[in-house]
Amino acid sequence: MRIQVFFSLPQVKLEDLEDQMVVVIDVLRSSTTICTALNNGVRSILPVVDSADAITMAERLGRQNIILGGEQDGLLIPGFDLGNSPAEYRAEVLQGKSLTFVSSNGTRAIIKAKSAACTVIAGLVNLSAVEGFLRNNADDITILCSGKADRFSIEDAVCAGLLTNRLLAVDAWKQAELNDAGHVAALLGIRYEQRLPELLRQCDHGRYLISIGMEDDLRLCAAVDAVPVIPVYKEDHIEKFMAAATDQFPLAHRD
Amino acid sequence: MRIQVFFSLPQVKLEDLEDQMVVVIDVLRSSTTICTALNNGVRSILPVVDSADAITMAERLGRQNIILGGEQDGLLIPGFDLGNSPAEYRAEVLQGKSLTFVSSNGTRAIIKAKSAACTVIAGLVNLSAVEGFLRNNADDITILCSGKADRFSIEDAVCAGLLTNRLLAVDAWKQAELNDAGHVAALLGIRYEQRLPELLRQCDHGRYLISIGMEDDLRLCAAVDAVPVIPVYKEDHIEKFMAAATDQFPLAHRD
Repeated sequence: MRIQVFFSLPQVKLEDLEDQMVVVIDVLRSSTTICTALNNGVRSILPVVDSADAITMAERLGRQNIILGGEQDGLLIPGFDLGNSPAEYRAEVLQGKSLTFVSSNGTRAIIKAKSAACTVIAGLVNLSAVEGFLRNNADDITILCSGKADRFSIEDAVCAGLLTNRLLAVDAWKQAELNDAGHVAALLGIRYEQRLPELLRQCDHGRYLISIGMEDDLRLCAAVDAVPVIPVYKEDHIEKFMAAATDQFPLAHRD
Repeated sequence: MRIQVFFSLPQVKLEDLEDQMVVVIDVLRSSTTICTALNNGVRSILPVVDSADAITMAERLGRQNIILGGEQDGLLIPGFDLGNSPAEYRAEVLQGKSLTFVSSNGTRAIIKAKSAACTVIAGLVNLSAVEGFLRNNADDITILCSGKADRFSIEDAVCAGLLTNRLLAVDAWKQAELNDAGHVAALLGIRYEQRLPELLRQCDHGRYLISIGMEDDLRLCAAVDAVPVIPVYKEDHIEKFMAAATDQFPLAHRD
């Protein structure tokens, strides 16, 4: 068993992800927003690379059926319905609709993992849910931290570490092999577990979000297990994983 | 004052390095080999991107005047004089000669920092020497960890952290602003300071070097302050910095 962590997108090659169980982490804020949207009744989420792609897709599917959501430099994209603040993704807006979603880091990471056997999206808000899913469905795990603009983001590394430490605490995973980044993530998980709200306010990305007036989002993104859904990316869409449908997902390294 | 750490090459943009005081770290093994070569009398070192470049350069400058050194996948390159084991770079081989040097990670990082105001090369072997140089010559510092194949390498991050912690202990630097990676490096510096030889044997790159028979190099690369030179990259060459020649180097952010 093996847990490999990558701290930013360019650190991982496409072939590292192929047929793997991949966990994509973007604590600030895509993971949190995606979990919130799924929890509040959106039918499915189509992650796209940029706003032009989102608009093309919305036109193809019928603009009235689609919510355009996401951000560029943290801000609402002109012509879009929603930004990337989890609080905007309320049930009354989302019920029965599909969402096309674009973000500077998170959706790029998710799309990069297109060739994975299964890609699950994790943040602090669904940590236990993802942990349970991985325990049952994976032997080897590749954790891809989205980072910010191809750079290291401590909050994603801490989330990767919290997940790693929870798995290492399980008997079956005790001997799992870690790469260098996995060891560091595990250390950061221990270090910051008890001060996540403070971490999110002080990290590079958190300070940027505060500077553009998005401070309220940090509290939502720091709320461990507040949104216990398991977003799974498959055939271009993100949907909520239903326990009964386990065998929908071809998982790597299963006998 | 600011210390910015980058954990791998793709994390840093060329414009982040322009006119900066840049520290390039490649503990295993380029930094160590470069320090050793300069300490043992090589006249200057020309870092190049690949072996074809090295051979072209050697032909242009006269093959008999040039030592071809470096590695590909950790191994001696066919037709080259020396590999990337610091122990090969002995005084009797180097005296009065110039060295053309290529390595998978370190030289790519050095060349990437071409537009810096000053690039200094650091490993564990010259930690105090580089610390002293930076104290006297910099206000803002950008530390570029070479990593391995664009990935995070813990030994480079630890070296960055040791350097960061030493600077933070100086009054003038106490309030220096760190980026996310700088905070993590500092934490890793504290964590691993007393067990560097063990770290080098257990990290991803160290285990690879052991697997190709290079275990002896690890001891040399872990020897803090054993080779107290300050390699500076300027006008395409790496030379030993001489204290009397400080004003040769146009340093950023000096009044």
